[in-house]
Amino acid sequence: MSLDRMIEKIAALQNPTVAGLDPKLDYIPSYIKEKAYAACGKTLEGAAAAILEYNKGLIDALSPIVPAVKPQAAYYEMYGWQGVRTLCETIRYAREKGMFVITDGKRNDIGATMEAYAAAHLGVTAVEEETAEAFGADALTVNGYLGSDGIRPLLKVCQQGDKGIFVLVKTSNPSSGELQDEALAGGAAVYRTMGGFCEKWGAELPGKYGYSGVGAVVGATYPAQLGELRAALPATFFLVPGYGAQGGGAADVAPGFDKNGLGAIVNASRSILCAWQKTGAAEKDYAKAAAAEAVRMRDDIMALVGEIRLP
Amino acid sequence: MSLDRMIEKIAALQNPTVAGLDPKLDYIPSYIKEKAYAACGKTLEGAAAAILEYNKGLIDALSPIVPAVKPQAAYYEMYGWQGVRTLCETIRYAREKGMFVITDGKRNDIGATMEAYAAAHLGVTAVEEETAEAFGADALTVNGYLGSDGIRPLLKVCQQGDKGIFVLVKTSNPSSGELQDEALAGGAAVYRTMGGFCEKWGAELPGKYGYSGVGAVVGATYPAQLGELRAALPATFFLVPGYGAQGGGAADVAPGFDKNGLGAIVNASRSILCAWQKTGAAEKDYAKAAAAEAVRMRDDIMALVGEIRLP
Repeated sequence: MSLDRMIEKIAALQNPTVAGLDPKLDYIPSYIKEKAYAACGKTLEGAAAAILEYNKGLIDALSPIVPAVKPQAAYYEMYGWQGVRTLCETIRYAREKGMFVITDGKRNDIGATMEAYAAAHLGVTAVEEETAEAFGADALTVNGYLGSDGIRPLLKVCQQGDKGIFVLVKTSNPSSGELQDEALAGGAAVYRTMGGFCEKWGAELPGKYGYSGVGAVVGATYPAQLGELRAALPATFFLVPGYGAQGGGAADVAPGFDKNGLGAIVNASRSILCAWQKTGAAEKDYAKAAAAEAVRMRDDIMALVGEIRLP
Repeated sequence: MSLDRMIEKIAALQNPTVAGLDPKLDYIPSYIKEKAYAACGKTLEGAAAAILEYNKGLIDALSPIVPAVKPQAAYYEMYGWQGVRTLCETIRYAREKGMFVITDGKRNDIGATMEAYAAAHLGVTAVEEETAEAFGADALTVNGYLGSDGIRPLLKVCQQGDKGIFVLVKTSNPSSGELQDEALAGGAAVYRTMGGFCEKWGAELPGKYGYSGVGAVVGATYPAQLGELRAALPATFFLVPGYGAQGGGAADVAPGFDKNGLGAIVNASRSILCAWQKTGAAEKDYAKAAAAEAVRMRDDIMALVGEIRLP
């Protein structure tokens, strides 16, 4: 009912990072693509097949090192239902390899519709008296603009299935402040108010390490706000995008951690996915290059975090 | 590059409504379900097959009367990639029948990721030198919490493909005010500020009837705000949920229309989908009952709107 499984995995591997699986065809070695195109043509089906094989190689190489993966739904939806099938199979494969899976879908809706999203991504779907897992991730990113009606249906599913959510609070992009930094009449910025909602919603999903099942997305590109929110939201675990390609470094993510080295999981996507291209590695070594970059990132961040201890 | 095709369709049919395709298995006649289960079992595949047949029947009956359908992505994702395939096939079928299709996905992200969503739902996807339509809707609902970085990638795709978006402004649910009604330091509520963004973004996608390609979602359950926003946002077309099952009536949606009877398209889902159950119709007449309810809704709203004229 919380993010405890993720926290235990972070501590076991002494690695507070997550690999973003945002596959673009440009990142995929040509021997994988050629095989897929030969079988399925240069079609959505062919692209989806290439992405699945690429992802599996990455997961094989990353799973001994990195506690979690974060597939970004958009990069699968762009290949149609065939791409969405690859998302489903990627999630299943990563979970089989022991990884914690955060689907980055930023889903949002209300009432029965949000229940449907909760069932889709974190729970089970009933077909008459039978049930099936539709996507079966461990956690889902969500957008709280619609208020509690959009979040409560998720809390129930998280409770039943030992799952978690991450609510967008302060995103990593340059224009995130257009709304999120605006001060409300009471004085607090919109992002701070949304953070307060996370603490309130999270009180219904307490965890044994002090963090609830309701986390928050807070960008590495805003280190001051990251530190401010870490102090203000003691029960809210942060998913921190913006490290690497978006410009954040270890010093920028450091304010997200607590005294036990917990409180944040830092995402990198492109730097890991494209490591083979950046280092000039052979195509066949793409996953090895990704793992080496994941180790470099882990060491970069752990040099500032020190040790991760379960309280 | 705007919502002109939708507006022309509304005027041609003299019907400013959209049928929400939010299929639940409970709404589907048992003869359809039994056939699908016999072929595929009580599985995600079986549910997805039943939903597709149900939707096609509805589209056949509604397309001469209703200008648009709005499939809600959550109800397809809950049946896994098989359900998402049904979403794709539903969109294709509705477009073949001449309907304007609004995918209700409330998608949101930034930069390249939002480009991927734009390609997925409104544009085309490149697979090397080939291109394919992934979902191919006419419009998409989106959430603007992330600011301009999350919207601009859509504008480009809308421009290229004559498509539109609807940004969540004031949603129909009871808790929508938790954030959306909060006053910002400048005095305007969050929803009003988001509405202002829609006018600004929409200036890049002008339409020939005065409405841009950037619409707004404004709930029928808040008629005062609907009227306030109609006056304040002259170039922003409203997608209005909350009529029918959520409690809004014709008098509640009336403030969303301009003097030409344009400016709003009102959604109903459950009342149309379940009309056969509510009226005690025979299962085989489910689509006929849906069409009768769509006519009743049209007449209910048109009694207040009067005539729809293209300026």
